[in-house]
Amino acid sequence: MLVVFASAKLLSEIFERLRQPGIVGEILAGILIGPSVLAWIAPGDVLSALADLGVMFLLFRVGLEVKSSELLKVSGTAAVVAILGVISTFGLVSAVLSWSHTTRNESLFIAAALVATSVGITAQVLAARGLIDLRASRIILAAAVIDDVLGLIVLAVVTSVAQGRWNVGELLLTAGLAIGFTIVVAVWGAKALGAIAPRVEERLRVAESQFVLALILLFLFALLAVYSGIAAIVGAFLAGMALSEHIGSRVRELTQGVSNFLVPFFLVNIGLYVNLSDFSSWPVVRITLVLILAVVVSKVAGCGLGAIRLGRVDAMRVGVGMIPRGEVCVAVARVGLGMGILRQSSYSVVVLTAVVAAAIAPPFLHLVFRNFPAAVPGEEEIYRLG
Amino acid sequence: MLVVFASAKLLSEIFERLRQPGIVGEILAGILIGPSVLAWIAPGDVLSALADLGVMFLLFRVGLEVKSSELLKVSGTAAVVAILGVISTFGLVSAVLSWSHTTRNESLFIAAALVATSVGITAQVLAARGLIDLRASRIILAAAVIDDVLGLIVLAVVTSVAQGRWNVGELLLTAGLAIGFTIVVAVWGAKALGAIAPRVEERLRVAESQFVLALILLFLFALLAVYSGIAAIVGAFLAGMALSEHIGSRVRELTQGVSNFLVPFFLVNIGLYVNLSDFSSWPVVRITLVLILAVVVSKVAGCGLGAIRLGRVDAMRVGVGMIPRGEVCVAVARVGLGMGILRQSSYSVVVLTAVVAAAIAPPFLHLVFRNFPAAVPGEEEIYRLG
Repeated sequence: MLVVFASAKLLSEIFERLRQPGIVGEILAGILIGPSVLAWIAPGDVLSALADLGVMFLLFRVGLEVKSSELLKVSGTAAVVAILGVISTFGLVSAVLSWSHTTRNESLFIAAALVATSVGITAQVLAARGLIDLRASRIILAAAVIDDVLGLIVLAVVTSVAQGRWNVGELLLTAGLAIGFTIVVAVWGAKALGAIAPRVEERLRVAESQFVLALILLFLFALLAVYSGIAAIVGAFLAGMALSEHIGSRVRELTQGVSNFLVPFFLVNIGLYVNLSDFSSWPVVRITLVLILAVVVSKVAGCGLGAIRLGRVDAMRVGVGMIPRGEVCVAVARVGLGMGILRQSSYSVVVLTAVVAAAIAPPFLHLVFRNFPAAVPGEEEIYRLG
Repeated sequence: MLVVFASAKLLSEIFERLRQPGIVGEILAGILIGPSVLAWIAPGDVLSALADLGVMFLLFRVGLEVKSSELLKVSGTAAVVAILGVISTFGLVSAVLSWSHTTRNESLFIAAALVATSVGITAQVLAARGLIDLRASRIILAAAVIDDVLGLIVLAVVTSVAQGRWNVGELLLTAGLAIGFTIVVAVWGAKALGAIAPRVEERLRVAESQFVLALILLFLFALLAVYSGIAAIVGAFLAGMALSEHIGSRVRELTQGVSNFLVPFFLVNIGLYVNLSDFSSWPVVRITLVLILAVVVSKVAGCGLGAIRLGRVDAMRVGVGMIPRGEVCVAVARVGLGMGILRQSSYSVVVLTAVVAAAIAPPFLHLVFRNFPAAVPGEEEIYRLG
């Protein structure tokens, strides 16, 4: 516990002093204390649970800053951004892999794993700088939610192809459930809560009833999201968004306390899963470098193209904001590993590609959002939420 | 996650409506969803980790409300309270057990396990009602810290006796380390931090540096406490106390968010460890009932006697405040189980006795502290901390 938290914050401090984002330092702390370098800490159930809670609280907190009505306004653009981003990433990664010695099924799985943007990193950067309210930020958030649903559909299709069976009904059911849940919560969630929550709250005698209700909703939505097949963090984000218009500043503060405590575990945990020893052979390093380039270029180009009508600056912001990959990639890659489609080295390649994509996004984000007040060190400035 | 948190809060709500302390409801929620009733949730690593973190944050938060200078003022009385409480509990429990069919070693271990007061429950009740600043509250907190050190020494002695070897040097070392750590931190901790912390903080560029530093100290002190042989929560409490004079309201709020989120896991986890099926035979039930009576009476009488010079009212408060037992009992009982000294049924008896002692304390506490403003439902009133 101490090692994880303190090392994350130590490297974060070092990175801030080098004028680099602290987030990258925290991920590197994970690689450093993880099995491949110092071997102080091995990934385990408890750390993973704290990490999962951390990213859930992070997205919940971000959701609290977003009004669903404003997100729905940009949903058209966001859908185009998400779809183009998924197509370009899947296409480019598959094309790149067709030149290497991977089998067709393995290529398809790697491409499917690398499709899903993980909005955690971007959300953390934007939230830390108080930029969640910008149009580009909203498009990124909405696109990331849609992207997650699309990624799920891609995974379902790829799994069917890999298993040599095409069950259209099942695929449609998966897709329908995921899309249905997202739309219902995004469109009617806030309204429904607006009608119900205050009444329930008034009647509750338990201490801090608003915070308690908020947490129960958070867990409930995360659970429902997982049952619908999409990531728990999307549920957490939707829960936050549904609550954003009905919740007081005290709950925001309390939530922020939890998230400040848990987020370092999420960041360190990403780093812990990198096994550097798989990268001792040149072909593996080469394919990783090519894939990193591919996932960055494809999202910037694809998502940027989707947002081009907002002008070049915002298009660039959206594209860069969609670069990070995260725990969804790792989860999909683990499915592939379990099915015997991905080799161990391919698994490591996917994980490192995701981690590097996550780690290089923050500096680029700072660059494309540079004409806003810089992240001045100091608590009030950096964490503006709550 | 959802089940644990929601059921805890649901039963807490029901208990509040029945004008009973919500805490008891949360412990009962643990028994209810645990293996012996609904079997929805089994105790596991992740839950235990969250529970441990929960009680650490609880004691840390309580520590933040206590000034070490004021605690030291009452340390004389507190020492008498703790010593008399330990002697009377150990004596009465051993005496009671000598009439039953337990072996000498088993009796000694059960008595040693039931000695240690767990201040978590009392702290939660007093903190929730904003009564931490009272003289009786301070004596309870100081006595609980001393009690923990004494409990450790008793455990060391009992273990030596059970193993048939008396290593005086080792015992003295154990005792010296525990006492030394506690005194050093209690007496010089606040001063040292007062000199160092502000300077370090100023130089840090990481976001929310005060909160980060506080959490690192919390983990560090908890770790040092464990290395000194005492419970991590004592370390957490001492860390909070050392920081109490140097920390802003924002850190208190953030800490409270974490503690509000995690404390239900601590309370539910206590209940999860109760295995009701061990209580199907009358002798086991009888010995449990007798032990519950013994641990309650011995602490009220012993600790109350220790505080008698403060008048009957405060003596009663101190005695009642020292009733709860908690995770230290469970931990000691597990040591006995592992050494083959405690039978499975005795282990369950110790755990249930501890849980009942924890669960019946809050109503008594409300009774003896009744001439203070009642716990009015509503967030600001109930959680006055921070």
